[in-house]
Amino acid sequence: MTTTAQASDTYFPARPSTDEAVRDLDHAHVFHSWSAQDEINPLPVASGSGASFTDYEGRELLDFGSQLVYVNLGHSHPRLVQAIKDQADVLPTIAPGFANDARAQLAAMIAQVAPGNLNHVFFTNGGADANENAVRMARAFTGRPKVMSAYRSYHGATSTAISLTGDPRRWSNEPGDGSVVHFFGPYLYRSMWQAETAEEETAAALRSLEQQMILEGAGTIAAIILESVVGTNGILVPPPGFLAGVRELCTKYGILYIADEVMAGFGRTGQWFAVNNWDIEPDLITFAKGVNSGYVPLGGVVISDEIREFYAHRSFGGGLTYSGHPLACAVAVESMKTFVDEGILERTRDLGERVVKPRLEAMKEKHAVVGDVRGLGLFWAIELVKDGETREPLVPFNAAGADNAPMAEFTKLCQAGGVWPWTHFNGVHVGPPLVISEEDLVRGLEVIDRALGELDRYAQ
Amino acid sequence: MTTTAQASDTYFPARPSTDEAVRDLDHAHVFHSWSAQDEINPLPVASGSGASFTDYEGRELLDFGSQLVYVNLGHSHPRLVQAIKDQADVLPTIAPGFANDARAQLAAMIAQVAPGNLNHVFFTNGGADANENAVRMARAFTGRPKVMSAYRSYHGATSTAISLTGDPRRWSNEPGDGSVVHFFGPYLYRSMWQAETAEEETAAALRSLEQQMILEGAGTIAAIILESVVGTNGILVPPPGFLAGVRELCTKYGILYIADEVMAGFGRTGQWFAVNNWDIEPDLITFAKGVNSGYVPLGGVVISDEIREFYAHRSFGGGLTYSGHPLACAVAVESMKTFVDEGILERTRDLGERVVKPRLEAMKEKHAVVGDVRGLGLFWAIELVKDGETREPLVPFNAAGADNAPMAEFTKLCQAGGVWPWTHFNGVHVGPPLVISEEDLVRGLEVIDRALGELDRYAQ
Repeated sequence: MTTTAQASDTYFPARPSTDEAVRDLDHAHVFHSWSAQDEINPLPVASGSGASFTDYEGRELLDFGSQLVYVNLGHSHPRLVQAIKDQADVLPTIAPGFANDARAQLAAMIAQVAPGNLNHVFFTNGGADANENAVRMARAFTGRPKVMSAYRSYHGATSTAISLTGDPRRWSNEPGDGSVVHFFGPYLYRSMWQAETAEEETAAALRSLEQQMILEGAGTIAAIILESVVGTNGILVPPPGFLAGVRELCTKYGILYIADEVMAGFGRTGQWFAVNNWDIEPDLITFAKGVNSGYVPLGGVVISDEIREFYAHRSFGGGLTYSGHPLACAVAVESMKTFVDEGILERTRDLGERVVKPRLEAMKEKHAVVGDVRGLGLFWAIELVKDGETREPLVPFNAAGADNAPMAEFTKLCQAGGVWPWTHFNGVHVGPPLVISEEDLVRGLEVIDRALGELDRYAQ
Repeated sequence: MTTTAQASDTYFPARPSTDEAVRDLDHAHVFHSWSAQDEINPLPVASGSGASFTDYEGRELLDFGSQLVYVNLGHSHPRLVQAIKDQADVLPTIAPGFANDARAQLAAMIAQVAPGNLNHVFFTNGGADANENAVRMARAFTGRPKVMSAYRSYHGATSTAISLTGDPRRWSNEPGDGSVVHFFGPYLYRSMWQAETAEEETAAALRSLEQQMILEGAGTIAAIILESVVGTNGILVPPPGFLAGVRELCTKYGILYIADEVMAGFGRTGQWFAVNNWDIEPDLITFAKGVNSGYVPLGGVVISDEIREFYAHRSFGGGLTYSGHPLACAVAVESMKTFVDEGILERTRDLGERVVKPRLEAMKEKHAVVGDVRGLGLFWAIELVKDGETREPLVPFNAAGADNAPMAEFTKLCQAGGVWPWTHFNGVHVGPPLVISEEDLVRGLEVIDRALGELDRYAQ
């Protein structure tokens, strides 16, 4: 950067460089997401490498949630860092109305790995606006107003996206988009339908969904939006046949199927898209996060030929300044290439099956506090309960403060063990960067195992 | 990047490198904003430098709209490119829940230049989600549902943002946020109130606004959101006293004043924020674009002490994965420092007053087709009419196809002259990068002048 003193050096505050200085300046001026501003104490982070990040005092933490499940290729991946630099040298940004090599290449690459005839990409800044635009397309294409989404889902925090969301983050934002209808998705461990097998759960969930479609008026429903594997709200892997059944219902009633793959896409489940695990072809797929590990904000909608053709001679009623941002696209191109060159999908499936699954199943056997474990790829949940019989959650739904004490204790234990855990309600989730070494993965799981041992006293 | 062949080199399509290849791949796979996909032919852009960008055949165009009015420091500014590289080397990204030096420094710097007690910053990805979150805060803070926004405004394209928007981009997205109410802002050249002076227009607009507040029920209105200088919809500079009057009305009725400075902020008007031109203190300011010239997507909300305190022990109901993205923040830090070191605000005011204003006023004298010119800083409009007396617009409102022929002809003439113009409806806007050389600025204005000469045949 500049080597001689500049006017700005005295005009503006200098960059803070100690733990304390960063904390102070952050508290004074940064307003944080989803928080009561005086009740948080954000950890200062100075740098990151691979599956770990480091505070300003050199303390390293193993990142078991990939930040917000987005640094799929880990921190400071050298190929991604180099791609940023290379694109910055050529062209950092150009408006959406132009054509550009990085943008076009990425769209072609995404089309290549997307299922069916999803051959077109509308780029956004993140997952929320991806979902907003997918819904916009579905409403225009079908001429229908309503959108169905699941309870226990998260779809983003802009106005329609937060209305789609099926978790408590929606509540303080209501009333919102009045044409959203929520339904119960499958969740065998806490079946709404007293199902005892995955097959029963699938059948019951589909029967319930179809009845709700009929009672809402199937002809009023533009789309159903569904996380292919529910993320933060429990890593709920759809039971066999469920997504195929949703696809069939959508086709039967002329409803579009939007797969929200913001969290599950780009390798998290060991596939480019999670729907690939079940050979499903949605009409629209939304993505963000893992597409470029969030090194530069990027999201988007993958669009079927039919929907793209609908807009061939009809103007699309959406847009944004940074759609198809070249710097973001260039990093995504390099990220997808790295996935291929480093065999990321294969290693994710392998580590999930061979390392995570057996260890989580052993924890379930060993710890009274563990009620259920589930997942695939590097996307797993350990659900904690007070009682293995009644399945009462270890902490109440949406608990805070004293009610949440056992989970807070768990977090503290993990951090003391050098692991930054990912928890949500009564769930401990496992979602490290897909590049994590087997050694670190095992080490992190052992820290979780020991912390669960401390929690066993809350359970019977 | 990689120097040896990798598996991905054959797996994925290569990056296109010619004008034709970029066009083809773009058309096949990229879905563009606000467009009928087969009725556009996006110009491929390979690189940029200063106030110009270049296609794949080496043809250079002077960027008279700063892309979508966001590359305020021009294309490929060396200090911004270096800031990207430096931050990429340290830490490209970290989640919003952590504290970070680049994020904290930028928030402190923005607080320093923001008016009054706007000392806190919630970062977003762009302008739309900045406005969404400002409205969210206003509704929570006041406990009231409605938001007032102006006709002839643009506030973004996510669900609530597009409902706020007062231009045709809203139409295909209705019904949207049902608690938005539109009002007429001041526009002396086409006064709703037959005003003949700026003072009359201010008084009439404020009288009308207050009556509408009363009739809507002032106690039901959370906020009024207002572009400090209306951007795309006409570069409408508020007449003296208007913004102060809005501030007074807001204070009188307990309504929050949100200043949308996504386009007007960060130097465009020759001030950090456009409200600084009139010494106004809004309760919330939204920004994006010029904050870092869009080299990495970034937007945000600047928040007053009172509103931040409201959230001291009450959770804020919004958030996003890339809030306070370190790479985006680091570029913004360097951009603001560059503003100071290169005297960007001063030169913007100077070029506007000394170079643009007299030349635009001369064009108005010279060309029958020019009805009005207005602006400040490097943010100007030339409004075209068929008839100087009746002020009938040169093309109808929201014209397309044959109706829009004169404007399409204008665009073609400018491009042939090496200038990429910024037009909207019957307006020719002047919004080049703030780093444009005086020579280039004059050259561009001369191209516009000549093109207007060709358009004079449409006017009387």
